[in-house]
This record gives sequence, structure tokens and C-alpha cells, in this order.
Amino acid sequence: MKLQNLEDIAIIGPGLLGGSIGLGLKSSGIAARVTGIGHRTASLDKAMAIGAIDRAGLDVREASSAQLVILATPIGLFEPMLTHLRDVVKPGTVITDVGSTKRSVCTLAGRLLPRGVWFVGSHPMAGSERRGVEFARSDLFANATCIVTPTRSTSVRAVRLIEGLWQAVGMRVVCLSPARHDKILAKISHLPHLTAAALVNLSREGELTISGMGFLDNTRVASGDVTLWHDIIRSNPDHILAATAALRKQLDRLDQAIRSDDSARIKHFLRTAKRKRDWLLQHKIDTDRLEA
Amino acid sequence: MKLQNLEDIAIIGPGLLGGSIGLGLKSSGIAARVTGIGHRTASLDKAMAIGAIDRAGLDVREASSAQLVILATPIGLFEPMLTHLRDVVKPGTVITDVGSTKRSVCTLAGRLLPRGVWFVGSHPMAGSERRGVEFARSDLFANATCIVTPTRSTSVRAVRLIEGLWQAVGMRVVCLSPARHDKILAKISHLPHLTAAALVNLSREGELTISGMGFLDNTRVASGDVTLWHDIIRSNPDHILAATAALRKQLDRLDQAIRSDDSARIKHFLRTAKRKRDWLLQHKIDTDRLEA
Repeated sequence: MKLQNLEDIAIIGPGLLGGSIGLGLKSSGIAARVTGIGHRTASLDKAMAIGAIDRAGLDVREASSAQLVILATPIGLFEPMLTHLRDVVKPGTVITDVGSTKRSVCTLAGRLLPRGVWFVGSHPMAGSERRGVEFARSDLFANATCIVTPTRSTSVRAVRLIEGLWQAVGMRVVCLSPARHDKILAKISHLPHLTAAALVNLSREGELTISGMGFLDNTRVASGDVTLWHDIIRSNPDHILAATAALRKQLDRLDQAIRSDDSARIKHFLRTAKRKRDWLLQHKIDTDRLEA
Repeated sequence: MKLQNLEDIAIIGPGLLGGSIGLGLKSSGIAARVTGIGHRTASLDKAMAIGAIDRAGLDVREASSAQLVILATPIGLFEPMLTHLRDVVKPGTVITDVGSTKRSVCTLAGRLLPRGVWFVGSHPMAGSERRGVEFARSDLFANATCIVTPTRSTSVRAVRLIEGLWQAVGMRVVCLSPARHDKILAKISHLPHLTAAALVNLSREGELTISGMGFLDNTRVASGDVTLWHDIIRSNPDHILAATAALRKQLDRLDQAIRSDDSARIKHFLRTAKRKRDWLLQHKIDTDRLEA
């Protein structure tokens, strides 16, 4: 099954991410009919109004004819949704998701879905601290990275279809195992989020008002959706605890250097970070240029 | 002495900040002659070329006729600079600085400067992770906050002059004691910087390449100048250690909530941060609107 030949796609939870996938597919010329399935009529109406979906439904059974199903609900709803889908989808259907952790959803899918229905986990690394289909954009995913997490038992054709889906909306695809995804993301996404929240929490409001724009930039992710991040944390506890331990170790080193007024070690700490971040920025620029 | 009546201003270290002050004063219509004093001819030539200064000198003695001296070197050079200035400036001169910590420079000034020469500490909270006069802009300070740190012995007229200086380049001025400044800034500026560096340091380069733009945003400050931040840390060790301890306490709470899979406490942690940051963002928007 090629993406170009798909006739029927269902997006469960067409909010910021799901709605942007719908808009992105339309603007890439994919002709399939897109069904949006949600629990609030008002949101579905908005998704219809902006052209992110062609038809709307309040019941997962509306996905019965879909050849591709995209789960775009909060992670906490994956289990009930996959349970519903099990009884609804036909053999050959490919299912993916957009969740920020991958082990739990891949395990759930392996346990719940019948043979012949293929699940391929996805984590499109784009978004916003805002929520809702009113913020959906056809170019939300452009030039960003999507991590696709096949397991040993995933069909290669299903993986190719999902890679094609993300490439169609402008993404660069990287394949990782679900476990490796969760380990790395704990360090480069979940920990930075939690650290931003901690930095906000440890100051009083009167102190925060003095801060410059830098502080608002630094802590932007702390304005993210509470339920969404709660679900992420609960589905990746071991790696998040390892990441907070790694942060504590960095802070310990720094504290020792400060306590002993060790100029060379303070500079080493700062210089290592600067070199790495400058390198990362250049790497991103080079990658964009190569692909432009 | 009013800012409008000044005829002679010296900027020691006309880089990003010092150069932007020169440009900002010019565009606000302050007619005083601005002398830039530095140790690199190339930088001074650039400052002249963009119109940030009217004349350039390599020796602090060039500040002898100045009525207002702005110290814009890295913090680590404040002691030698103030020692030079002591023998150079005439009675009635007002000196300020642009350093990110305030106790040490205020103590140095109190110890080194003769009677009748007034020092008023300043911390204009604007800038960039970039360095050098080539990035100077007349509007660098527009709508940002400058913290001015008078002590009990500072002349009110000198404080008014310095407040006027920052208002002339578009800043909102807040007065705090040097100690209170350093305590708050440790939490809202120094700790976020060090945390960004720690977040970069704890991942390998291959892991970092997978990160989204969010990570680059989150860690932007980690690309800041190493010497500048080294000097800041060494001049505020006690409050920075208290701030890293406060961060550890937040991480401890979070770890406990994750370990016990305590949904309510995880949500409480995230919700407190979201409310505070959303409030801060709205507060900044409201303040800008009131002053517009």
C-alpha cells in the first residue's frame, strides 16, 4: 500500500497535531478522504471548517473503513482507543500514533491488536505549547524530525507507509527502537520540560516579574498542557528518573567547582556546553541546507 | 546634573552592550560626546564606524574629562578598571556598570573610589548570546528592564542620572539593593543558564542531533560567552549554591511523585509551573501595553 493510493484515512483526535496532519496531507496532494474522530462536536466542526478533515464522527467505529489510522489523542487514551480499534479495523490496516513516548504504546498495540493489523509508532517532534485544532497549520511539521519506532515484528511495508506519511508533510524521518527513543527523549525533551517547570516553581511571582525575556524563552515549555505532560511522565518513569539523576550529577560537579572557587573547572563546564550547543546549532543549519 | 546637560560620556568596553548604549543615546538625541575606551583597535574602529562612539582611546585616562563613565567590560575587569579610574576621574563624576552581579562591584566601588565620585550599579537585562560591537543595536534595550542598585550611601542625584540613562535608551527601571539583586538573579538568570549548560552536557552529540527546535530554544543561553559567565558565577557563589539546592529540592519532590506513580502530585507540580508561567507571560504583556 502506497500513500498515494490510500483512499481512506482516519485521524482520531484532530487537534493541533492531528489537524495539522490533515492540512499537511491535503496540501501535499494526497487525495484520500480524511475522517476526523473526536468527542467534542465543536472541535470537529472547527477541523471541518479549516479543511483539516472531510468528514467527522464521534465514534471510533467511523474508522472501520480506514486503511490508515492516526492516533492523535493524549497518551492516556491510547489503551481505550486501541481496545476499541481492535474490534473495528479491517485486516491490512496500518495504525500509527503521535505520542511523545513509545515503549508503552508499542507494547499496548502488540498486546491488543489482532494479527494482520499493523502498528508503527511515530513521534513527530513538532508542536507548540498551545493546544487545539485552531492552531493547526499545514506546515507545522516542515523541516522537523519524526522518529518512527518499528519493532522486530513490524512489517516493512507498514514502516514504509508511515515514513512516507511524515515525509509527505515535510518531515525528516529517523528510525529508533521504542526503548532507545524513550531513553534519549527523557534526556533531550522530558527532562528539559520538567527542569523548566522546576525553575518556574522555585521562584515567587514577585521575583519572576523582574526576569528578562530570556527567562520566558527558557521556560516556554512549562506552559505546556498539564494532562499531556502528566501522561508522558507516567509512561517513561525509569528513563526520566535516570535523567534527573544525570542532571543532579552535573549540578554536583558544578557545586564542587563553585565551592572550591575552581576557575578552570567552572570554565570547563561552561565551555563543554557552549561547544556542544554551538556544534548542534551548526549541525541543524547544515542539515537544513543539505535538504533544502 | 541632568542627562540632557551632559557633554562628555565615556564607555569603557564598547562591545555589544556598551556599543548599544552609545547608539541608543545618539538616537534618543542626547548630545554628549561619547568616548569609547577599549584594548583592541579593531573593535574601537567598528564602534566608530557604526556611530556608537565619537572618539576612541586605548587608555582609561581618556575618561578623565567624562561626567558619566559606563563600565561595560566583563565583570572580571572591574577591579583593575575601577583602580585606574580612581586616579583619573574628577570629583562629581558618576560611574555605572552593566554587570550581571551587583554586590561585588558595589563593594569594590565603595572601597576604591574617592569621595565625591559616585558609583551606581546597573544591570540592564538585555543582550544576546552573541558578543561584540558588530551586534550592537540602538534598540537592544527597548522595553526591557534595567535593575539599578543604589546603596544607602549613594547620592540621590547620581541615582536619578543613571535611571535617566536607562530610560533614555528605552528601559523600564527597577531599584533593588545589590544583595537582593544577586539573590533573585541567581534564581531567575544564573541558575537557568547553568541548567541549560547541564542539559547540554548530559547528552552525547549523537543524542542531541535528534532533538527538536525546542531543545535549541531551551538551551540558547548555554551558547553564551564562557568568560563572562565564569565571572558571573564567581561573583555570586553563595546565592548560586542556594539556587542549585532549591532546584535539587524541586527534583526530589518530582522524583518522589514519579517513583510512587502519584498522578495528583505530578499534575500539581506541572500545574503550579504552568499557572505561574502563564501569569508571568500575561503580566509582561500587560506591562508592555500600559507603557506603550
